[in-house]
Amino acid sequence: MSFQNPVFIPGPTNIPEVLRKACDMPTIDHRSPMFGTILHPARAAVAQILKSTTAEVFIFAATGTGGWETAITNTLNEGDGVLIARNGMFSHKWIDMCQRHGLDVHIVETPWGHGIDANQYETILRADSAGKIKAVLATHNETATGVKSDIAAIRAAMDAAGHDAMLFVDGVSSIGSMDFRMDEWQVDVAVTGSQKGFMLPAGLAIVGFSSRAVAASATAGLHRTFFDINDMAKGYEANAYPYTPAVGLMNGLKTSCDMLLAEGIENVFARHTRIANGVRAAVGAWGMDLCAVSPDVYSDTVSAIKTPEGFNASDIVAHAATNYGMAFGAGLGEVAGRVFRIGHLGSLTDAMALSGIATAEMVMADLGLGIELGSGVAAAQNSYRHGSFIGQMAAE
Amino acid sequence: MSFQNPVFIPGPTNIPEVLRKACDMPTIDHRSPMFGTILHPARAAVAQILKSTTAEVFIFAATGTGGWETAITNTLNEGDGVLIARNGMFSHKWIDMCQRHGLDVHIVETPWGHGIDANQYETILRADSAGKIKAVLATHNETATGVKSDIAAIRAAMDAAGHDAMLFVDGVSSIGSMDFRMDEWQVDVAVTGSQKGFMLPAGLAIVGFSSRAVAASATAGLHRTFFDINDMAKGYEANAYPYTPAVGLMNGLKTSCDMLLAEGIENVFARHTRIANGVRAAVGAWGMDLCAVSPDVYSDTVSAIKTPEGFNASDIVAHAATNYGMAFGAGLGEVAGRVFRIGHLGSLTDAMALSGIATAEMVMADLGLGIELGSGVAAAQNSYRHGSFIGQMAAE
Amino acid sequence: MSFQNPVFIPGPTNIPEVLRKACDMPTIDHRSPMFGTILHPARAAVAQILKSTTAEVFIFAATGTGGWETAITNTLNEGDGVLIARNGMFSHKWIDMCQRHGLDVHIVETPWGHGIDANQYETILRADSAGKIKAVLATHNETATGVKSDIAAIRAAMDAAGHDAMLFVDGVSSIGSMDFRMDEWQVDVAVTGSQKGFMLPAGLAIVGFSSRAVAASATAGLHRTFFDINDMAKGYEANAYPYTPAVGLMNGLKTSCDMLLAEGIENVFARHTRIANGVRAAVGAWGMDLCAVSPDVYSDTVSAIKTPEGFNASDIVAHAATNYGMAFGAGLGEVAGRVFRIGHLGSLTDAMALSGIATAEMVMADLGLGIELGSGVAAAQNSYRHGSFIGQMAAE
Amino acid sequence: MSFQNPVFIPGPTNIPEVLRKACDMPTIDHRSPMFGTILHPARAAVAQILKSTTAEVFIFAATGTGGWETAITNTLNEGDGVLIARNGMFSHKWIDMCQRHGLDVHIVETPWGHGIDANQYETILRADSAGKIKAVLATHNETATGVKSDIAAIRAAMDAAGHDAMLFVDGVSSIGSMDFRMDEWQVDVAVTGSQKGFMLPAGLAIVGFSSRAVAASATAGLHRTFFDINDMAKGYEANAYPYTPAVGLMNGLKTSCDMLLAEGIENVFARHTRIANGVRAAVGAWGMDLCAVSPDVYSDTVSAIKTPEGFNASDIVAHAATNYGMAFGAGLGEVAGRVFRIGHLGSLTDAMALSGIATAEMVMADLGLGIELGSGVAAAQNSYRHGSFIGQMAAE
Repeated sequence: MSFQNPVFIPGPTNIPEVLRKACDMPTIDHRSPMFGTILHPARAAVAQILKSTTAEVFIFAATGTGGWETAITNTLNEGDGVLIARNGMFSHKWIDMCQRHGLDVHIVETPWGHGIDANQYETILRADSAGKIKAVLATHNETATGVKSDIAAIRAAMDAAGHDAMLFVDGVSSIGSMDFRMDEWQVDVAVTGSQKGFMLPAGLAIVGFSSRAVAASATAGLHRTFFDINDMAKGYEANAYPYTPAVGLMNGLKTSCDMLLAEGIENVFARHTRIANGVRAAVGAWGMDLCAVSPDVYSDTVSAIKTPEGFNASDIVAHAATNYGMAFGAGLGEVAGRVFRIGHLGSLTDAMALSGIATAEMVMADLGLGIELGSGVAAAQNSYRHGSFIGQMAAE
Repeated sequence: MSFQNPVFIPGPTNIPEVLRKACDMPTIDHRSPMFGTILHPARAAVAQILKSTTAEVFIFAATGTGGWETAITNTLNEGDGVLIARNGMFSHKWIDMCQRHGLDVHIVETPWGHGIDANQYETILRADSAGKIKAVLATHNETATGVKSDIAAIRAAMDAAGHDAMLFVDGVSSIGSMDFRMDEWQVDVAVTGSQKGFMLPAGLAIVGFSSRAVAASATAGLHRTFFDINDMAKGYEANAYPYTPAVGLMNGLKTSCDMLLAEGIENVFARHTRIANGVRAAVGAWGMDLCAVSPDVYSDTVSAIKTPEGFNASDIVAHAATNYGMAFGAGLGEVAGRVFRIGHLGSLTDAMALSGIATAEMVMADLGLGIELGSGVAAAQNSYRHGSFIGQMAAE
Repeated sequence: MSFQNPVFIPGPTNIPEVLRKACDMPTIDHRSPMFGTILHPARAAVAQILKSTTAEVFIFAATGTGGWETAITNTLNEGDGVLIARNGMFSHKWIDMCQRHGLDVHIVETPWGHGIDANQYETILRADSAGKIKAVLATHNETATGVKSDIAAIRAAMDAAGHDAMLFVDGVSSIGSMDFRMDEWQVDVAVTGSQKGFMLPAGLAIVGFSSRAVAASATAGLHRTFFDINDMAKGYEANAYPYTPAVGLMNGLKTSCDMLLAEGIENVFARHTRIANGVRAAVGAWGMDLCAVSPDVYSDTVSAIKTPEGFNASDIVAHAATNYGMAFGAGLGEVAGRVFRIGHLGSLTDAMALSGIATAEMVMADLGLGIELGSGVAAAQNSYRHGSFIGQMAAE
Repeated sequence: MSFQNPVFIPGPTNIPEVLRKACDMPTIDHRSPMFGTILHPARAAVAQILKSTTAEVFIFAATGTGGWETAITNTLNEGDGVLIARNGMFSHKWIDMCQRHGLDVHIVETPWGHGIDANQYETILRADSAGKIKAVLATHNETATGVKSDIAAIRAAMDAAGHDAMLFVDGVSSIGSMDFRMDEWQVDVAVTGSQKGFMLPAGLAIVGFSSRAVAASATAGLHRTFFDINDMAKGYEANAYPYTPAVGLMNGLKTSCDMLLAEGIENVFARHTRIANGVRAAVGAWGMDLCAVSPDVYSDTVSAIKTPEGFNASDIVAHAATNYGMAFGAGLGEVAGRVFRIGHLGSLTDAMALSGIATAEMVMADLGLGIELGSGVAAAQNSYRHGSFIGQMAAE
């Protein structure tokens, strides 16, 4: 691994200079008013990025997994039904968590590479006339497969079914990089972390709760202390935490939000799309396929690329690390050994993206995959040259 | 608040330069072997600092509160009995957590300022012939009152009672600063965090589990995912985490342990004692009393100082911050307004300690407390000059 | 030495957090417009701090010594007369430089501890009817003795003598900390460096040239290339340098000026005076004398403190470093072994100053100087408590 | 400009993470023994990198230009003859400096793109039977044209002519990156800076003096103070400087040398050659020519690439900066507008080099140069894939 190279794992991302410095903070008194000047603007800015005017934002010293646990333990009771599709490793892990917490998990098995089927959700919800399903869970962007799902369609399905379950969305690898509309989609809990669209080190679980989800906490019987939103809310009222906050990361989050909002969140999304388009152009030029089955589910933050039968895709990751000091993502779970992943979220320039593509080409050529050197690069260059350059220079 | 001044809150501590830099790390692939070169040495070094040759060390991206939750959820079942003394805010909070998780909490109410009464523990344990009490909980150092308890005595009481409950110790503000002997005291779960003796930012919950505590996880029915030690152990086997680790903080922890072990852990303890002695000499010179009732319970990491009746001790904290840019600790819970706290843990030099003492004097004089300027400083100087200088220069 | 302690050498100073970060900059193209956005604002802000609306500011990758060389080589010819007082090590060194460059140096020997005698300057200038003296040199603040000289009085003496020599002022340890009025005093060359009032690492020589001094460069015959102001001016026109600039330090300088101007330069001066008053109160309480003979020449950036006959003052510096990890300044030249120095310039808080004073007390007591512990601290505390707190919190 | 992209100017280079941190140092007392622990190892390691067992290394807070001035002012007298070839902007500037200092400069005009003609040197030296030429000057690597000269051949020419002039070599953009043999080539003064092979920010002029050159300082009449090697040597004896050193940069230099020597200096050279080979392969694939006329003069640290007649090469630099946030070098002097430069020195990985090549392709295509996208990348990839990987991963 070389600290000089960018990383192409699908998070944590490359950390912009200004965020490195924002996080690297001397100790302050986390019970002093100074902390409030970090905490409150950070929470308000996250809500803006969630496109919500009403969400309560809670930030825990944890990771996205802790955010999932926050979502379910603050809103549900043992035995409650939840509906969730399994279409990748991260939805699988959320299912596992729900089961461990004694929830009654209705799983919609979905081929990896596909998005969530809103129709199936609708059918199941219609059938649940007794209203046993208290929450619908959805992974907005499956980091394992590079597949995004249509949350608006899921909301429409819920409405069509006339079901009043809450809607919890895992936006860990989408929020801050891909369009997310908490209010418009009536999301009740949105979950993310610091290390993806916010371009920070891992260490913060970030959740937005609708007022309905907050209200649910009053009767939610699942045990929780560390992830209790009411303890947190009480702390916030006093400019503080119920325990010791990760002050530097919080300062980084505030600064990251400032960057994203200064660039314009739509510009941030457009920037991710154009970088992703270049990567996808390269994949096409290589004659390879994405795990994601169709353009409507292509993720703008990560591409999972299928390798030929009989080839171990993980060799690409190992060879790149050993021979070129570069980090790509391996396949996980069902697609382990069958895909490798190029993360393209956060603050990536064209030049950085091209360095990843060029390195991937060398690796695949070294491993006998018959890739024409420069072919993917040329396709991506072509894409970048004709891009609109929207936001290209923004994220320094 | 001035970034130029040291902080005198009882954690997070001042962060030594080398640890600032160790934490401020570019992104690496946390699933690559490079992460293993941070993870495993860090875990092994923490065990050394716990004085354990057998403990399994688990490190979560969380805080000490998460460490408590790890301790109980991985070892206990709803309805299990736990025995715990309440002698300060942090033991109180642990009790609250146990109650929320449905445990049957036997509370030994103990005057704040006193240590845990091992005799009472023994009496209660003897009475529990049915063995309903599954765990004895003890806060080694009550950060709220500056009181340390005698864990060896508690172990002796448990043995004398012939009770086989597990022993869980909150060492958040003692481990790495005050003597802690996991193996000798047969501690089953030791809990700490990154932001105290390890001198790092908050963001890591660090726990040591005895093999008995690990075994208890097989039958522990309390729900957990984020804090599950078995998921974590499985991750460790692959040089990884079950989710995204806080890599920079982990690197800081490894580096911090290297510093502490290079200095010699006994030298670290002696250094804390000598700095604490100076602070206590100052308190004596001011004619004031510690909240801690007797020398055998004096904490070497924090001193809680009682202010006169009718005086609001919190004014000291506010005035120091506003007028001198310096952070002290306020009183919490029962002793709110009645004590202020000087944290003296981590990498403090004589000169730093004296700057805190001198500032406290100005603040108290400003607020009409009739302190003779320079009196506490002189007492502390006298103490420091005649100190053995053990380890004084070590922690740069 | 401990990185945790502040330094009390008379420069380089303690570096505020924000300046550490401003200097620690990734590489940019120093011939790109981005460099211009650092260079020009930095130069303009330095002029403001010099209180000049007309000065041309030049910034070299060098130190104050290079600034002196810039002053003389760009304005003078071999054999030119210069008038200069020797009242400390730094004026002595400037004299030495002038002699090495073949100038005809008229030296006014002045007892160390005294300021420059403007009357003597006037007498000599009156006698120079032939106008052989081309430049009058003055060290505004003698860092070796803690003595400031009255530049306004020197200007008045020059005017009274009706002499049209240029006026060059070494403001290395005064500019940015003590009042300096380039235009009002008609200073032709003002010299300083990055590591004093600007609170940066050493590495920049900063000079302000009057238009008359710039004009003198046309006929100045002393050899120069690296320090040539015309090469520099030509570079500036293209947003660049004639060679590679120290970009990070330049960015630090820009940021430092922003800090000083945001605080208000008069507030900065007042802050230095109040910190210095506390140190002087401590010296008085110790029953010791400053090297500076009277209050009108007391420096607000450094105090040189005389030790008793027969005592080696340098032992204080060595003992403080070895036993307490703290850096004071030793005596230099004529006063070597007879004074030790406490630097009190840059971003110092009351608490930091008190830590230096308290440590000095311990050191002197250890070395048998019969200092009453706490006495100087009490005097300084008393001074700080009754200070107006102007600007106390500004320089973070 | 994007801080996320590597720079491709021929210095300052990209700064490795570990060197960023080494330079970013808190203030220490530069007159304390701690400074000696930086200074002496740094000087010794530089000598090793110069391949000299006898050189005295002097390090000034300046840049390479200051190093040139150090070379001539410490060894020569006004009117002394020096022999020097002009084959690029940097040799031109050194000539200009010599003329300004009153030296009698014998210039060998050499076409830009060519190396120094040792035969011409020999002819001129043979003709100088009076021994008026006191020093032979040579620019080892012309940064403006990407041309290296054969210093061994120049030494051979001097020997063949039986001339005993001293030999001064500008190794600013070669030392630490390309083979340099101070002792074997009997170089009397070697000049470099911190911002090239040492991968640091600009701010240090680094020179090695042979004992003969040191001895010459006794009679050298050119004026100097800031750059006086004897003042410096006297300072070094006391672990100090004659003025304030740039401590952080010195610490960076020590750390940089540690890195280079740990990698093995021959491996460092081989690494530069392989990266340069890739760049040259790309240039060939583009159908373009280097300014350097033949392989024997190709520089391994910078390539100057000729653009077609009528095309303004500087547009490439401007377009790359504006549209892709990437910095290349413009042509200077005679070749301004006719070449653009790709710097490839310091800690570059294959991936970084490819990002520069790929970006240059897009820029040239955008500007209508008819470059086939991906063609240069493919050539470079091919070169890197078949490289020996020597030292590829070393410089993190």
